[in-house]
Amino acid sequence: MLDRVDLSEKLSKKHYKKIMDDLGERLGLAQRAARDAKRPIIIVFEGWRGSHRSAVINTIMQYMDARGFDVYSTVRMEHDEKAQPFFTFFWQHLPADGNIAVYHRSWYYLKNLNDITPDHEGCDHCKHMSFGHINAFEKVLTDDNYIVLKYFLHISEETQVKRLQKGEKTLGKAWREVNPAYDESNNYKEFYTRYDNMLEATNKPNAPWMVVAADDPEVAGIQVFTNIVERIENALEVGPQVTPEENREDVKYDELSKYEPYQELSKEQYKKELAKYQKKLAKLQIDMFRRGISAVIGFEGWDAAGKGGSIRRLTEAMDPLGYTVHPVAAPNAVERQFNHLWRFWINLPQPGNIAIFDRTWYGRVMVERLEGFAQPGEWQRAYEEMNDMEEQWAEHGMVVLKFWLQIDKDEQLRRFTDRQNTPNKQWKITEEDWRNRDKWEAYEDAVNEMIARTNKPYAPWVVVEGNNKYYARIKVIKTVCEAFEKRLKNKM
Amino acid sequence: MLDRVDLSEKLSKKHYKKIMDDLGERLGLAQRAARDAKRPIIIVFEGWRGSHRSAVINTIMQYMDARGFDVYSTVRMEHDEKAQPFFTFFWQHLPADGNIAVYHRSWYYLKNLNDITPDHEGCDHCKHMSFGHINAFEKVLTDDNYIVLKYFLHISEETQVKRLQKGEKTLGKAWREVNPAYDESNNYKEFYTRYDNMLEATNKPNAPWMVVAADDPEVAGIQVFTNIVERIENALEVGPQVTPEENREDVKYDELSKYEPYQELSKEQYKKELAKYQKKLAKLQIDMFRRGISAVIGFEGWDAAGKGGSIRRLTEAMDPLGYTVHPVAAPNAVERQFNHLWRFWINLPQPGNIAIFDRTWYGRVMVERLEGFAQPGEWQRAYEEMNDMEEQWAEHGMVVLKFWLQIDKDEQLRRFTDRQNTPNKQWKITEEDWRNRDKWEAYEDAVNEMIARTNKPYAPWVVVEGNNKYYARIKVIKTVCEAFEKRLKNKM
Repeated sequence: MLDRVDLSEKLSKKHYKKIMDDLGERLGLAQRAARDAKRPIIIVFEGWRGSHRSAVINTIMQYMDARGFDVYSTVRMEHDEKAQPFFTFFWQHLPADGNIAVYHRSWYYLKNLNDITPDHEGCDHCKHMSFGHINAFEKVLTDDNYIVLKYFLHISEETQVKRLQKGEKTLGKAWREVNPAYDESNNYKEFYTRYDNMLEATNKPNAPWMVVAADDPEVAGIQVFTNIVERIENALEVGPQVTPEENREDVKYDELSKYEPYQELSKEQYKKELAKYQKKLAKLQIDMFRRGISAVIGFEGWDAAGKGGSIRRLTEAMDPLGYTVHPVAAPNAVERQFNHLWRFWINLPQPGNIAIFDRTWYGRVMVERLEGFAQPGEWQRAYEEMNDMEEQWAEHGMVVLKFWLQIDKDEQLRRFTDRQNTPNKQWKITEEDWRNRDKWEAYEDAVNEMIARTNKPYAPWVVVEGNNKYYARIKVIKTVCEAFEKRLKNKM
Repeated sequence: MLDRVDLSEKLSKKHYKKIMDDLGERLGLAQRAARDAKRPIIIVFEGWRGSHRSAVINTIMQYMDARGFDVYSTVRMEHDEKAQPFFTFFWQHLPADGNIAVYHRSWYYLKNLNDITPDHEGCDHCKHMSFGHINAFEKVLTDDNYIVLKYFLHISEETQVKRLQKGEKTLGKAWREVNPAYDESNNYKEFYTRYDNMLEATNKPNAPWMVVAADDPEVAGIQVFTNIVERIENALEVGPQVTPEENREDVKYDELSKYEPYQELSKEQYKKELAKYQKKLAKLQIDMFRRGISAVIGFEGWDAAGKGGSIRRLTEAMDPLGYTVHPVAAPNAVERQFNHLWRFWINLPQPGNIAIFDRTWYGRVMVERLEGFAQPGEWQRAYEEMNDMEEQWAEHGMVVLKFWLQIDKDEQLRRFTDRQNTPNKQWKITEEDWRNRDKWEAYEDAVNEMIARTNKPYAPWVVVEGNNKYYARIKVIKTVCEAFEKRLKNKM
């Protein structure tokens, strides 16, 4: 794409101030309209070193309303943020509905793309990062009606050299564009190819690149500013788009019927095994912590299938500082202002810690699907969104495990009745549980499809035969132990 | 306090499980009641190394509803969190209304208290930390109806030695209580005195310590658990407390009248000075960043006094990655679930960055005072709360500056009228501005008191004569430059 840009273009400076002020006026209006329409806006600035990104951004920032507006940079990613899967940082700093986030160096700032230094191969952050993950991330956002604007500031080799020389004189600016700029400048052709590949690979209709001729910073500023204003105005005029329903083949998924919900395990055997695996788990937790390996363990299952009890048997043996249980209910007021995956990304465990989710992101393709809280297009694309998310976590070295606690309909009835008849258990059973039970068959279809489409080697579903609680609890804790052991043997 | 505890006490284990289950039942009820009453609960666990804090906490955790419940530890404070003023971590992890936070090692985990290692003097985090700040922090919370429970697990020297020896055998646990435990054990008497001093100094009626005999972990567990349940039950029964109005002397504060709101500065002179100081500021920002020194700059002033314009002149020259402007309006739904200072603590700048607040925490003693959004007891204690907060920031090395933009009543009328008559400025003027104007004299009294009571060497108020915008803008940017220069000369 870079060869289509005329770097010699000049714009009359005569009306520069006037043009910028007019654009500022329009931006102010558009920003307030976007807030009213609850449309979040993401503006990405990439480009050559020395392309004066900072100056362009700061000029435009002066016209923005500071409410609901933030600037971030991958370069300034903090130590702890770097220890997380790459996109965690961007999820954590995603703008809420109606807000704007500007990224000065974004998810395109991958060391293996931007550095030519010998150690760039070993960078944890981009070892597994691919344009595929980038396109998937942007698609999640634009499918969710985020307005995503991407600018690449392009300068000629000559201009870059000139600016580096000028920068050398102003000692004070040396910190900003130190060595990497010279790497780039000394290998302009190599980087030209890299950037060009990157632009081609990620120039998608939902999130297109605008490559800006930036040899003249004022020309660049006006071009970028005009495009920002026009694209926000257009997006607001067109209004939010609904992902179309997919053309679904009439597939009948069948996963749960492979499992016989009752499996024998005596109370005595249970006690013995529980003690054994809890001891083992306590030791494994320490090893995981020492190695900085974290784990995400999700629990799904029928109401009253025993999620709580299984989780308690897991956590009893662990150090309380090393695990967190996240109960997942309907999204709250804050969570509703973000994409449905946001609340899981921001709750990823610290290195060496274990995050247990009591119900998970899969609510999207179960309760939200069946109760109509998600549109057909929304839950249908969610399978791929969640696969990509879990793949990123696993590639980062996390253990990702998902349990489906399976009981049959009769067993559920027994447990519901028991809860209703036991005074201090009554709060655990609600009208909603009975309503969900009436939709058993519809849920069964949804669960079958979910397991079939998201059971991946990097993030497997484990169906737990749950009619016998003893058997179920042991299967859960044993599976966790085995997954940790397997992961610890892996050098990654 | 330690000598009043009988470490030889034994409790019959016969009913241990039964007692714990009953307590668990009550805790569940109390937790749900606290959620309904929107009362946040903080539980602090401190104590000797080897006092089995983890086991006690984990036992109690098993009975808790995981919703709205989190465990934190100072020991696990992340790298980036350590770079912030000490209490930032605790503000960031404060429980919201109705939630519970458990601290396994809390703000009492100060290295100069807990370590005997030679370098403990140099620890940034506790160099300036004093019991005074701790008591102030807890008072802010309990005044705001947080339930604060503090437990110190006390064991004898003999038990500690025994447990260390046992720990050595179980190699796996070595990571948890490595060297510091031996330091403590080798200097039991020294630490006994330290801990005793700490307990005495911070044992306040609003947040008393319970020292627990923990030679027998089951006895300790039951004692702590019983106390937690009883104290939460009691607090909920008594209901929220209102801080009584203070007995105020009839002081007439007089600060603003010392300033003549109009000061001369020609447009030509303004342009020259602005260019000079913007250039200087750009350089200073880089030095501040290099040194990791951050700054908090607050702007207050009459409506239409020119806060926005002054802020823009400051930020125009800066690198957009190094500063953030935080516009402060009425607290939103999330912010209302926390103490009034929370939203400022969580927006402290990263090391080397600059946070600009367009309106500040002083809203508490101006608009909230005058409109009755804060009770008299609440805004009256706020002066001291804010002084302590700013003192902590400054002790941590931050530059803390507060501007009051002063115009007279006639000048405000001129600007209001101008806004009303200029189409693209009309959105900047609302009915509320006119209503506030009617209360000019009451606001003047509040501002005078605010400046008089919170103008401190570590966080000075700078009154800016604002009738002439040129003069005001230069005074602001010049003051900022001087404060940065002064701070940079300081080695801290």
